[in-house]
Amino acid sequence: MSYKITIIGVGLIGGSLAKILKNSDFASEVIGFGRNDNNLQTAKNLNIIDSFTTDIKSAMDCDIVVIATPVGVFKDILKQIKPFVKNQIITDVGSTKQSVERDVKGIFDSDFNNFVPAHPIAGKEKSGCESADENLFKNKKLIITGGEKSHKKIIQEMWLLTGAVVSEMDSKTHDDIFGLTSHLPHLLAFGLVGQMAKQKGAEKFIGGGFKDFSRIASSDSTMWADIFENNKDEVLNHLENYQQELNNLAKLIKNNEKDKYKKYFAAAKKNRDTWI
Amino acid sequence: MSYKITIIGVGLIGGSLAKILKNSDFASEVIGFGRNDNNLQTAKNLNIIDSFTTDIKSAMDCDIVVIATPVGVFKDILKQIKPFVKNQIITDVGSTKQSVERDVKGIFDSDFNNFVPAHPIAGKEKSGCESADENLFKNKKLIITGGEKSHKKIIQEMWLLTGAVVSEMDSKTHDDIFGLTSHLPHLLAFGLVGQMAKQKGAEKFIGGGFKDFSRIASSDSTMWADIFENNKDEVLNHLENYQQELNNLAKLIKNNEKDKYKKYFAAAKKNRDTWI
Repeated sequence: MSYKITIIGVGLIGGSLAKILKNSDFASEVIGFGRNDNNLQTAKNLNIIDSFTTDIKSAMDCDIVVIATPVGVFKDILKQIKPFVKNQIITDVGSTKQSVERDVKGIFDSDFNNFVPAHPIAGKEKSGCESADENLFKNKKLIITGGEKSHKKIIQEMWLLTGAVVSEMDSKTHDDIFGLTSHLPHLLAFGLVGQMAKQKGAEKFIGGGFKDFSRIASSDSTMWADIFENNKDEVLNHLENYQQELNNLAKLIKNNEKDKYKKYFAAAKKNRDTWI
Repeated sequence: MSYKITIIGVGLIGGSLAKILKNSDFASEVIGFGRNDNNLQTAKNLNIIDSFTTDIKSAMDCDIVVIATPVGVFKDILKQIKPFVKNQIITDVGSTKQSVERDVKGIFDSDFNNFVPAHPIAGKEKSGCESADENLFKNKKLIITGGEKSHKKIIQEMWLLTGAVVSEMDSKTHDDIFGLTSHLPHLLAFGLVGQMAKQKGAEKFIGGGFKDFSRIASSDSTMWADIFENNKDEVLNHLENYQQELNNLAKLIKNNEKDKYKKYFAAAKKNRDTWI
């Protein structure tokens, strides 16, 4: 089968996916949709998409819709496309999944089953379709958190083309895991930079450790504010546990229980070396 | 002038310094001292040192002594060398400086002024003299926190040979700054890995963000336990401030003050991009 595919939001993720699909037999046509004519023209010039439109009705004349905008405008996009939804399969690439499923339920009827929530665990510091990269998803995880069986199969097929490793879990598990492995570290990095900014001059003595630790604090603030808004409960829960972890470490250091914290550090080193 | 130099502890830092000194006119001879014959023989074979000894009396027959052991054994080393101290200049490479100065004061007489406390802000994940690297200190900061004027000048001269950028500050300022820019991030990374180890399976979903953030949790546990023991007050102070920073962020997220935390993230990104 070959599908007419519309990508809503041709940025780094949407652009990279478009580029792969355009060179595959899976797509008969790849259409870019967005508000920004210039960006879409750039994507066309870069040969990432076949054509583009800023008219949502024309954009919805397709078989598959991939919503690749920040999670924060997801609800708006759903409202825009709703009048034109027929049998298209609709999927997304959002970093939070309970919120996305909630938005879909809030806007569509209860029997609506066209939607397949998905999340590719990939990215880089650069954004925009100029950074589109055919290898972005290669060997990276792609999580699907729901959807009707036959639709899910098609979306899986699409992502397998990118070299991603597709797996499934429910959206609560997804948000819990990524709240810990991704969202929490971002918050911690933002917080440390925030604290350092208060101690003028300290930044002159930054070493390689701080540089790597804080890299993710150079991430896009809009995208991350959206994520914390949409995965609030899970993030706050992990943050509370983390504060407890820090309290325990502080207590050990305060009470000179050096053997205990040394053991804790050694276990952390061993775990990390095993994981990575 | 040319000096006979003894390096106590020929590991990554001591070995890298030895290697540079051995190829310079500053040193007439570079002697390695340690407890481990095998390690010293390796250093000799690698042409990092001219000769070695495990006898402290012979080792102290020199002009300059560089103590390059972990901070935790510093006191023991001082006790060992004390009987043989005459006019040698003694310096170190420890990551904490108030503790080192305290140890010196505790062991030597009040008029003892041979000691120049120093700290090169350099390192890598590999340890041992096999990893000795002539470029390790190039363009890195070297901090001196005290010492008698003419001695200090000689130690400065020594470090300038390595390509380090030498600067001076008092030991309290040093420990405060590095407590924030280096020690605190290490503690935070150890803590996050510790927390993740409790949620079995989450480690399968680690991305590039976590990988970089946690790199410093793969650091040597002995060295870091020493640092937290010896810079306890400053680290606990910064940790308390950090926890307050996290509490403030948690409150903003909880109360849906998205504009405020988005602004906070944007400021962090801007600061970090300026600093690095």
